[in-house]
Amino acid sequence: MNNNITAVRKDFYQRIDRLGLFPLWERLHNLVPAEPAAACVPALWRYRELRPFLTEAGQLISAEEAVRRVLVLENPALRGQASITSSLYAGLQLILPGETAPSHRHSQSALRFVVDGQGAFTSVDGERTTMSPGDFIITPSWTWHDHGNPAADEGGEPVVWLDGLDIPMVRFFDAGFAENHQVPVPPLTRPEGNSGARYGMNLLPMRYESSSRTSPIFNYPYARTRETLDTLLRQEPLDCWEGIKLRYVNPLTGGWPIPTIAAFMQLLPKGFRGQPYRSTDASVFSVVEGSGSVCIAGQRLNFEPKDIFVVPSWAQVSLAADQECVLFSFSDRPVQQALGLLRESRESF
Amino acid sequence: MNNNITAVRKDFYQRIDRLGLFPLWERLHNLVPAEPAAACVPALWRYRELRPFLTEAGQLISAEEAVRRVLVLENPALRGQASITSSLYAGLQLILPGETAPSHRHSQSALRFVVDGQGAFTSVDGERTTMSPGDFIITPSWTWHDHGNPAADEGGEPVVWLDGLDIPMVRFFDAGFAENHQVPVPPLTRPEGNSGARYGMNLLPMRYESSSRTSPIFNYPYARTRETLDTLLRQEPLDCWEGIKLRYVNPLTGGWPIPTIAAFMQLLPKGFRGQPYRSTDASVFSVVEGSGSVCIAGQRLNFEPKDIFVVPSWAQVSLAADQECVLFSFSDRPVQQALGLLRESRESF
Amino acid sequence: MNNNITAVRKDFYQRIDRLGLFPLWERLHNLVPAEPAAACVPALWRYRELRPFLTEAGQLISAEEAVRRVLVLENPALRGQASITSSLYAGLQLILPGETAPSHRHSQSALRFVVDGQGAFTSVDGERTTMSPGDFIITPSWTWHDHGNPAADEGGEPVVWLDGLDIPMVRFFDAGFAENHQVPVPPLTRPEGNSGARYGMNLLPMRYESSSRTSPIFNYPYARTRETLDTLLRQEPLDCWEGIKLRYVNPLTGGWPIPTIAAFMQLLPKGFRGQPYRSTDASVFSVVEGSGSVCIAGQRLNFEPKDIFVVPSWAQVSLAADQECVLFSFSDRPVQQALGLLRESRESF
Amino acid sequence: MNNNITAVRKDFYQRIDRLGLFPLWERLHNLVPAEPAAACVPALWRYRELRPFLTEAGQLISAEEAVRRVLVLENPALRGQASITSSLYAGLQLILPGETAPSHRHSQSALRFVVDGQGAFTSVDGERTTMSPGDFIITPSWTWHDHGNPAADEGGEPVVWLDGLDIPMVRFFDAGFAENHQVPVPPLTRPEGNSGARYGMNLLPMRYESSSRTSPIFNYPYARTRETLDTLLRQEPLDCWEGIKLRYVNPLTGGWPIPTIAAFMQLLPKGFRGQPYRSTDASVFSVVEGSGSVCIAGQRLNFEPKDIFVVPSWAQVSLAADQECVLFSFSDRPVQQALGLLRESRESF
Repeated sequence: MNNNITAVRKDFYQRIDRLGLFPLWERLHNLVPAEPAAACVPALWRYRELRPFLTEAGQLISAEEAVRRVLVLENPALRGQASITSSLYAGLQLILPGETAPSHRHSQSALRFVVDGQGAFTSVDGERTTMSPGDFIITPSWTWHDHGNPAADEGGEPVVWLDGLDIPMVRFFDAGFAENHQVPVPPLTRPEGNSGARYGMNLLPMRYESSSRTSPIFNYPYARTRETLDTLLRQEPLDCWEGIKLRYVNPLTGGWPIPTIAAFMQLLPKGFRGQPYRSTDASVFSVVEGSGSVCIAGQRLNFEPKDIFVVPSWAQVSLAADQECVLFSFSDRPVQQALGLLRESRESF
Repeated sequence: MNNNITAVRKDFYQRIDRLGLFPLWERLHNLVPAEPAAACVPALWRYRELRPFLTEAGQLISAEEAVRRVLVLENPALRGQASITSSLYAGLQLILPGETAPSHRHSQSALRFVVDGQGAFTSVDGERTTMSPGDFIITPSWTWHDHGNPAADEGGEPVVWLDGLDIPMVRFFDAGFAENHQVPVPPLTRPEGNSGARYGMNLLPMRYESSSRTSPIFNYPYARTRETLDTLLRQEPLDCWEGIKLRYVNPLTGGWPIPTIAAFMQLLPKGFRGQPYRSTDASVFSVVEGSGSVCIAGQRLNFEPKDIFVVPSWAQVSLAADQECVLFSFSDRPVQQALGLLRESRESF
Repeated sequence: MNNNITAVRKDFYQRIDRLGLFPLWERLHNLVPAEPAAACVPALWRYRELRPFLTEAGQLISAEEAVRRVLVLENPALRGQASITSSLYAGLQLILPGETAPSHRHSQSALRFVVDGQGAFTSVDGERTTMSPGDFIITPSWTWHDHGNPAADEGGEPVVWLDGLDIPMVRFFDAGFAENHQVPVPPLTRPEGNSGARYGMNLLPMRYESSSRTSPIFNYPYARTRETLDTLLRQEPLDCWEGIKLRYVNPLTGGWPIPTIAAFMQLLPKGFRGQPYRSTDASVFSVVEGSGSVCIAGQRLNFEPKDIFVVPSWAQVSLAADQECVLFSFSDRPVQQALGLLRESRESF
Repeated sequence: MNNNITAVRKDFYQRIDRLGLFPLWERLHNLVPAEPAAACVPALWRYRELRPFLTEAGQLISAEEAVRRVLVLENPALRGQASITSSLYAGLQLILPGETAPSHRHSQSALRFVVDGQGAFTSVDGERTTMSPGDFIITPSWTWHDHGNPAADEGGEPVVWLDGLDIPMVRFFDAGFAENHQVPVPPLTRPEGNSGARYGMNLLPMRYESSSRTSPIFNYPYARTRETLDTLLRQEPLDCWEGIKLRYVNPLTGGWPIPTIAAFMQLLPKGFRGQPYRSTDASVFSVVEGSGSVCIAGQRLNFEPKDIFVVPSWAQVSLAADQECVLFSFSDRPVQQALGLLRESRESF
């Protein structure tokens, strides 16, 4: 293009800039890219490196003062955004024996995946559930919730879980509300296990109708999930990309447990070498059992139990297991499906 | 808090920062705000100010070279992001007589709201529709589409429409793909009007099944919409907040025409003074007929035909009509509903 | 089988009969047949033979006394059951100028297909619609409805329509309720055309939500349906079995207009010779335009405008048009689909 | 009415009768009754009276010869129709040690409720499940299924279950097909327990999609159901009409396990005296545990374990428990809901 045209256009761009306008043609390929160009990068956090800092945080601040004593895991390419992927937040929460994290509620939906220790509890709208490693627990949008831990002399021990929330998503849509409860620990109104009995047994109360988009089960215990994985490992062919992979389900709909977050548990038998795949939903993994490695966009990361790693959107990923591995993961897949955006590709070496 | 504790914590924060961690408790209220704190601000673009720049753009670059000759409307608080609200993009597209905007497809869904001139056409997957002012036209995700305009000697005149796309949303979810067609103008495979006849008459072809989340109607002509508004103005009580307000519908589902974007047309009778309301879905308005004013978060903006204005999430808004007004608007409401995030408040002076 | 065994079994059967028992094995093949063995038989009623009897009925009894002046069409194999197919009822209703058929409501859903004359009206829950030949009108379950006709000096003329109801189905499920209104003609509460404007234009009122399973449109006018058939005849390939066939749609769901009854309109071009097909949903046809023939289970029946014929479940059927034909039909297809029972077969000569 | 008019009308009725017509006005109140007038009557079968006849049937005919050795329970008012309610069929099936009931499939859906004995098995599409008393087992429409029982020397014992099928419904809609398998016992293709692990644990295989309307779980074991009832008895308030009542659920949808049949399990604590209610879905009850009584339309029937009783549509019914009772029941509720016909009334003494 000759210099004159260039100069004329530049002048034009400056004049329209004052009106809040810019020329699409100069940025079309950026705005409508040929394929996803995620800012999010692959990353892995080693739990054995993180754990001492959690312990130190436990000494620096109480759960009550912190409201939530969480170290947030920020994607290296998204520093300052409190995001582990572009749409999701993750953090490790520590609650010590005898502590209380006071009750509040917010538009953001949360999942808790129990990583370390047991016996702490979370309460959702008046029902408490006790945590064990590997349990998948959800806090639906706008439900009151508090966390606690029995005193040390009642058997309480430090408990750490991975929080997964849709904080970036709710912020992106400018739709977040929050409120503190009048009391730190509102009274319980239903016995422990009530939701599991009412909704988790392939039966439903005769006249029950839900107006929520979130699963009425709020603890999917690991014991049951692990046993199911074992059964299917013996009975089903392995998927060449995913091993045995299950998704947590809202039993009222067969759909996702949370309208904004999908969660999965998968088993890779010892020696599994998965084929590579891609998906537009970036995923956060938490290693439950076993060691192995993940290769993301050509970069190999070794993992051990309790480690956390993140796979960006549309990055090529493959999983390998040195020992039998169990991996928990979560992503924004329900939203990508609802918006008609999900795309997947299964590849081979 | 004493200085020592502060210093100890700061030291801790610096040490964990190297691991990609930060303490939630220092930013909890920002991340989980009491109510939406949208960056997006109210804004209004006067068409009579914009129109000369569109004309000038028509002289500076051809539709072919530009691919799409669009001046993008950026929210003053979101400069550089190509966003009119946090999740939506809007621009004014000009196509001159005899021009062609070549065929491509992308994950992003688009709406075209015809503002000025008539006789241009858009083609979607082999079917063409001719544009008239007030027509609401959609381009579903991943459908081939091109635009064109008859030559001047065949009656072509400059045509301007408002483009509304979910570009920021698709970028946020890192899920966008795009592709150019091998030819600028692929052949037509169905006659004009075919979609309207097949799907728009409260009848459906016997064995038709859709796998798309988008409406199979791609032009909702203004003539029909306007007549419906007139009928309902005579027959229905006015809503104190919205006058007569209709939403465009996907006749296969009764839901939204596009999975990511809702669109509305409303009529305010002369002298209407609407009560104030709020909603978490920020909205972009295009004035079709009449003049009036909108008060957004205490700021009054006067509007005339073809002007465009934006109402941020959760801003208090009220509408007033000096003459009978017809307003088109669009928002990300379908997403907020799917995610369980939509919240509305109807208030009074 | 030897006589002794036979005798022993017979004795056993008699003894268990007293307890209300019988041996499945003696009737298994009847109860679980290899394919449908419909009692319903093919039949055709010639309107020119029926019309004089309708006229005579008009002299014998008033609409007021009759409540509904209907001659019911009984399938020859289902006499006494008020059934034209096993699950559906059909009758021809006459209303004379100046008459009123008083308001009542019932669990049974009804359709009215206007056969002869125009200007009569039906009112559903306070909204009136005026009838023209070919209009498809519905009366949802449990809605108040009355019919009327302007006096002769106001232009009223005798009007005949085909009633289609789910009377046998509601009886089979023992689920029918009915009630007479306190007044024969309750006051109108909405202007004529209101439903069509609110729901029929691919737009919906902003905050409208329906709790009904029935379409909110209650008149699908023939003018519009006929024009759509014409357009598609010019634009679409003919289906070898059905010509151009459309189904009436509930615009809130894309599904059937009535939860128990599907309705269709189809066009056969002059000279069309349809291939044979079968379906488990028995169908009732009303000829709108043109003459032709239908071959049902090897039996050919010639038809003329306003004739009515019935095709039993799973009978082989093919249609032929001597002139351009328009055929209205209805069946219990929505129920067969909801129950997972619908089966179809497309065959060729 | 004077005799002349009567005579004229009678003459008219005779003349139109030849055309397959009758005058609606003479039968309107029968065809559109004020409330359901079910032919079905209350009835109770005492298992201790039936059991000897089942044993005798076991001597009279083999399972192989009978195909299905079932004594069908006919409603006293529906003799000859193989119906226990107007829309449902029930029978008691006996399978002796070492026997096989050969594989077939049919449009009719079936449930099996295990009444007496254990260790027999049913196979559905290549997966076997072993039966225990109280298990609720389903055979989806058009799935291959056979039944068997281990030989006596392998621990086999006579097993009796209640069959519930939609035979009258499929017959009413003229939509039944059936087919025998080439071999009496097709090979198993999946291990026992596979369906329960894949679908019953609030998890689903990652890429599973069902095209069926029937639950993928085909055995809902009593042990789990009973434990759930116990938990809820301790935790939930009693419903004054139903005690603790649960419905079996398709975990893919939260809906009914079979598209045509709902099934329920309820617990009445000792001394429970239920309030009266009505529903348009007639129900068949099988007593699992405890003794008590049911009052149906003013008629009291005492029941013991394994007894079967039927409650007609819209009959007033109340339940009373002398001991803690567990009752299984099934009805056509899914159909009544899909058709918009279900009506219920909760009353009090």
